[in-house]
Amino acid sequence: MPQFKLAVLPGDGIGPEVIAEATKVLDAIAGKYGHTFDYTYAPVGAVAIDQTGEPLPEDTLALCKKSDALLFGAIGHPRFDNDPSAKVRPEQGLLKLRKELGLYANLRPVASYAELADLSPLRPERMKGVNMLIVRELTGGIYFGEKGRKDNGNTAYDTCTYSRHEIERIVKMGFVEARARRGKLTLVDKANVMESSRLWREVTRELAEENTDVDLNFMFVDNAAMQLILHPAQFDVIVTSNMFGDILSDASSVLAGSLGLLPSSSIGSTVGMFEPIHGSWPEGAGQDRANPVAAILSAAMLLDHLDLRDEAADVRRAVNEALAAGVGTEDLRPREQLGTAAFGDRIAKGV
Amino acid sequence: MPQFKLAVLPGDGIGPEVIAEATKVLDAIAGKYGHTFDYTYAPVGAVAIDQTGEPLPEDTLALCKKSDALLFGAIGHPRFDNDPSAKVRPEQGLLKLRKELGLYANLRPVASYAELADLSPLRPERMKGVNMLIVRELTGGIYFGEKGRKDNGNTAYDTCTYSRHEIERIVKMGFVEARARRGKLTLVDKANVMESSRLWREVTRELAEENTDVDLNFMFVDNAAMQLILHPAQFDVIVTSNMFGDILSDASSVLAGSLGLLPSSSIGSTVGMFEPIHGSWPEGAGQDRANPVAAILSAAMLLDHLDLRDEAADVRRAVNEALAAGVGTEDLRPREQLGTAAFGDRIAKGV
Ligand SMILES: CC(C)[C@H](C(=O)O)[C@@H](O)C(=O)O
Ligand SMILES: CC(C)[C@H](C(=O)O)[C@@H](O)C(=O)O
Repeated sequence: MPQFKLAVLPGDGIGPEVIAEATKVLDAIAGKYGHTFDYTYAPVGAVAIDQTGEPLPEDTLALCKKSDALLFGAIGHPRFDNDPSAKVRPEQGLLKLRKELGLYANLRPVASYAELADLSPLRPERMKGVNMLIVRELTGGIYFGEKGRKDNGNTAYDTCTYSRHEIERIVKMGFVEARARRGKLTLVDKANVMESSRLWREVTRELAEENTDVDLNFMFVDNAAMQLILHPAQFDVIVTSNMFGDILSDASSVLAGSLGLLPSSSIGSTVGMFEPIHGSWPEGAGQDRANPVAAILSAAMLLDHLDLRDEAADVRRAVNEALAAGVGTEDLRPREQLGTAAFGDRIAKGV
Repeated sequence: MPQFKLAVLPGDGIGPEVIAEATKVLDAIAGKYGHTFDYTYAPVGAVAIDQTGEPLPEDTLALCKKSDALLFGAIGHPRFDNDPSAKVRPEQGLLKLRKELGLYANLRPVASYAELADLSPLRPERMKGVNMLIVRELTGGIYFGEKGRKDNGNTAYDTCTYSRHEIERIVKMGFVEARARRGKLTLVDKANVMESSRLWREVTRELAEENTDVDLNFMFVDNAAMQLILHPAQFDVIVTSNMFGDILSDASSVLAGSLGLLPSSSIGSTVGMFEPIHGSWPEGAGQDRANPVAAILSAAMLLDHLDLRDEAADVRRAVNEALAAGVGTEDLRPREQLGTAAFGDRIAKGV
């Protein structure tokens, strides 16, 4: 009987509620297939700052390192947002986790659900056939480059640095993902301005020679931001740097109509991290209103990563069936509105 | 009789065609008000590379410096786009022009035209009331910071640097613009990650004390990319750094339904530069298909900058009347389709 050790980091805001539904669905899978998922819970983010003074306590990090995978809720609390000079902030926990676990690739799929076409801010004809994956570099670039102050604090700088090695491994992943999908890869950069982007293009061109079955194209980030709104269906896999990926993956995430639907994975080393993209939504916390689908589909990505493919497919099918049946949380404006827990029950029953 | 010296840089692709319509409209204004506009033409971009080997020849720059204002078409040609290692590229001309003329502020207004609501990729209800101005810093940040290679070319870096002085002057402009509009200013940054963003917040908070009549808020760039698609009407004036402004102004520009409608100004020193945002569209060049409105409205911004307010208002009225009458180029899917020159004639007649 296969046994898996999962680190569960519910974090802040609605994190705990949606993660509870994800583990509910994993339990249903465990029952159906005879697996055992051992959950160990640990604090991260604002709750961890409150308990230990640190957004990512040593114990939490140690737990993650010895787990098979990591289920993550959300972090962030408004009391930190309006204080950019705060020395300790929840986000630091997330950034440190990515770096320490070597999670250099963030995968964000965005697809349109026919049943939910009305929710998209885009006109329905623009959303037809939207099915893309953003592969964002997650442990390099301007996020982790040298930064600081000069001139008595009156000048500030951040450095965007990329090495050939960092670019190679993420672009390779882009090619692999593209091959498993519709065979199209778009490198998004700003090679007409940035030297690091020129290195991305160089390396990508070299890798293209071993990946001639994938249709590769290049796009400047400003144009990509337009194309995502104008013709999102043109994209299959986008691969890009940390900062551009942050912006473009959030832009693309609103197309589907609700952030509450979208999962993500952050991978690289052996331990993968799986996380709904929606953030902590502090105003909604504790009210049984949050959509658990993003967390549940993150659990499906986790199953895929553990090579439990049938199990992952079951979860996705159960989600699709529930959405097709017209049930859902308020954000989906469903025919039959449910709370977080009841919606999770419904999906868990369907696996 | 007031006389104005205008440098005209039509540039590449459709640049010359749309600029011809802008000067046609300026001529109509000159006739009506008894002004004289002296146009001096000079090459920039790919055409300048062909003629002189330089994207911004010395003579062109010298001409700009001694003019009252600068009307700019577009630059860029596909033969440079697929060669990022090319030593000389049209974009360099534009970047050098901005830097040499001290054009530190790029102003990009985006508004929805009721008549053209069907063109927007967004649903009509999302577009209602959209009327924003993006104030983008244009001569600093990662565009102009130190950049290069290390480790035998295997590591590349770009530096985003901002000084208090650079931030102050552009944020001040943001406050001024907000005060003249609906009184709301949004600073877009990534202060949870970037040190330079934290300096932007610091300086902006200080300036807020002298600008208490303006309603100031802060937004992370990833969230701003979402909000522009979800609720674009929430924005009045956005002020942001060079790179974020590049991305967000292009994202917002597609909301109105056609890039062919949108003007821009780049200001700072005494000489202002006025430029349609649409780029050179090489495939459309020489076919009398390009929409001249963006260039014509850029001329209106130029008139405003020369303090010819009534004249500018006349141009805008003439554009609005033509659009309301249902005439336009193909991109507008008008009731009565015209070519570039005929559409320009129509607007010129209306001033
Ligand atoms: C919280 C923040 C530091 C983070 C990022 O920018 O990476 C978030 O926006 C994300 O995309 O996961
Ligand atoms: C051509 C390019 C260098 C330029 C920029 O990025 O500034 C363009 O995209 C713009 O926005 O004017």
